[in-house]
Amino acid sequence: MKILVLGGDGYLGWPTAMYFSNRNNEVAVVDNFIKRKWEMEVGASPLIPIANLHERVKVWKDISGNEIKIYIGDLTNDRFVGKVFADFRPEVIVHYGEQPSAPFSMIGNEKAVETQVNNVVGTLNVLFSMKRSCPNSHLIKLGTMGEYGTPNIDIEEGWINIEHKGRKDRVLFPKRAGSFYHLTKIHDSNNIEFGCRVWGLKATDLNQGPVYGIETEETKRHELLCTSFHYDEVFGTALNRFCVQAVAGTAVTPYGKGGQTRGYINIIDTIRCIELAVLNPAEKGEFRVFNQFTEVFSVNELAALVKEQGEKMGLSVKIENIQNPRKEAEEHYYNPVHTRLLDLGLQPHKLDNVLLDSMLKRIIEFKDKINLDVIMPKVRWENKPNN
Amino acid sequence: MKILVLGGDGYLGWPTAMYFSNRNNEVAVVDNFIKRKWEMEVGASPLIPIANLHERVKVWKDISGNEIKIYIGDLTNDRFVGKVFADFRPEVIVHYGEQPSAPFSMIGNEKAVETQVNNVVGTLNVLFSMKRSCPNSHLIKLGTMGEYGTPNIDIEEGWINIEHKGRKDRVLFPKRAGSFYHLTKIHDSNNIEFGCRVWGLKATDLNQGPVYGIETEETKRHELLCTSFHYDEVFGTALNRFCVQAVAGTAVTPYGKGGQTRGYINIIDTIRCIELAVLNPAEKGEFRVFNQFTEVFSVNELAALVKEQGEKMGLSVKIENIQNPRKEAEEHYYNPVHTRLLDLGLQPHKLDNVLLDSMLKRIIEFKDKINLDVIMPKVRWENKPNN
Repeated sequence: MKILVLGGDGYLGWPTAMYFSNRNNEVAVVDNFIKRKWEMEVGASPLIPIANLHERVKVWKDISGNEIKIYIGDLTNDRFVGKVFADFRPEVIVHYGEQPSAPFSMIGNEKAVETQVNNVVGTLNVLFSMKRSCPNSHLIKLGTMGEYGTPNIDIEEGWINIEHKGRKDRVLFPKRAGSFYHLTKIHDSNNIEFGCRVWGLKATDLNQGPVYGIETEETKRHELLCTSFHYDEVFGTALNRFCVQAVAGTAVTPYGKGGQTRGYINIIDTIRCIELAVLNPAEKGEFRVFNQFTEVFSVNELAALVKEQGEKMGLSVKIENIQNPRKEAEEHYYNPVHTRLLDLGLQPHKLDNVLLDSMLKRIIEFKDKINLDVIMPKVRWENKPNN
Repeated sequence: MKILVLGGDGYLGWPTAMYFSNRNNEVAVVDNFIKRKWEMEVGASPLIPIANLHERVKVWKDISGNEIKIYIGDLTNDRFVGKVFADFRPEVIVHYGEQPSAPFSMIGNEKAVETQVNNVVGTLNVLFSMKRSCPNSHLIKLGTMGEYGTPNIDIEEGWINIEHKGRKDRVLFPKRAGSFYHLTKIHDSNNIEFGCRVWGLKATDLNQGPVYGIETEETKRHELLCTSFHYDEVFGTALNRFCVQAVAGTAVTPYGKGGQTRGYINIIDTIRCIELAVLNPAEKGEFRVFNQFTEVFSVNELAALVKEQGEKMGLSVKIENIQNPRKEAEEHYYNPVHTRLLDLGLQPHKLDNVLLDSMLKRIIEFKDKINLDVIMPKVRWENKPNN
């Protein structure tokens, strides 16, 4: 199958590209490396040094014999996107190519605008290019569970059957996001649903929980094939940050009361979910939504797991709940449905001691490279004078 | 009160500015005249020639003795918006400053992107400027009833109390728009609700139906004070188009089966609704939504009303349903709630024979200027090869 991975230089994009390349697909990746620039702006870098995309593609070819094609350019440039689609004619588009950080989008006016334009315009251009060049292709779009917020009702998978004043309809599940970044994913979902409804496009919107993990079968094949692992306040997610704090010997710091509860997923399962979506595509005109996570934890529970496993390994781990830089419910109901990917055959790799052990060990190898200055939160959700 | 009207050069913005100026408010308008450029692009111009904004402001001062301040610039420029807010320090912001046409947004890739960036970024910059310079000001934002689509349940005013699997919550009403333009209004609503929730801003989101009418008390005070009346396929709404077709002696052309049903509102009532929102502001942190229309008609009903009144006036009017350029339900349930503005005191000016009579007479004065080339639809919602 011809698979185009947008954001193919990134944490998930690169291992996804190798995974499909390893399974007899023709794979191309698109990236403009703007994420690297954003990392520079906030002073963050991945814990484990990563080779540039050209080098990785070359190593991958040497090891696997398979070519991964590179297109370098910006998804917000409609002519570039048009050319890539007309040239490669993908059957599947896996779209990770967006600004992925909530705190980054909350730095201030400029970053909020940059995030919304980057994400919304990129996805619009993808929809138009699909319509023009490959109307039967299947878009697999990475969204986030954060689109839903934390409603007091069970969260369904994208759509909900509603009964109101004696009448019924199936409607899009009401969403209420927690940052300008999360809002872009809602905007995208609405634009994509329109493309499916009006143009007959096929799309799977994956509302994914925070991803953790460092390695996949493919990244382990060569040191130069590893993917970017972030632990800073801007690009690192909670579990990754906590593990690095435990290794560094500083306190593990849940935000606020720590009752914030989310669905989490292992990087291995993320890629398997993409594969399940590829193998079982959406129908023509269908806007399909899967809630993509395997286990639910509060941040306090995550911190406790890291402490427990860290101490088994001889680390001294303390937990210190700090003032929450975000504005969010710190105690809330949370019961999202997530059966559709399980029905397709997903067999979750759960967050157990073995996995935590291997993550911590990998981080210990790079302990000297940990930059403690980038972990504690500086970006705040509420009023600051000059942003 | 200090009232800032965004999009103050436009069809609704200009009469709104005069209305408040006439009632002892300090009024400033913001515009960048890009709507005039868009009109050029599609070859449309208002039926009744309109003076430029500087001339109108001067005539208004001569007649009323009141100054309206002009800020010329682009809402997508965060520095410009910041300067306007820091300088004028509005207590109320009436935000009409967006690309207002569904067909324009459906011309192709470029126009879809231009529409979404213009509308979403402009509104984001307004939110940030409110937060920085006047966190207690009240944003009155023009949205559209078209955000809701045509669900099979009653449409509530922005929020809905939902019971699901035995639990309850009040959530944003699920929306499903019919064009990339309508989608921008959903994106805006979501961004604004976030600004209220996280920063404590005050906002009233007016989900307005199509507006008809040519004159207000203020525009009638001098020929040079009139506002732009559009009847073309891109910027003209159904009733305006139908009236012009009746006067021109060509068939009145509802799209498709003509069962598309919408809530309509007179321009006089639009401005009164804004006033009611100004006088009864949202609370701190409140995202309040009003459905702003006074009567519900199908397009076939509108066409029949125009035919009836036109024939009373001696015009020969025929109706010809044409192929629908849009993709939309042509027969559907439609029962939107719209009690909140009535509760605040709105007394609707309904679409009756007197009003239609005066609209048709005004159009007859300018019959020679009608350009028949711009009325029939060329922009189509479904697949075309090269857009």
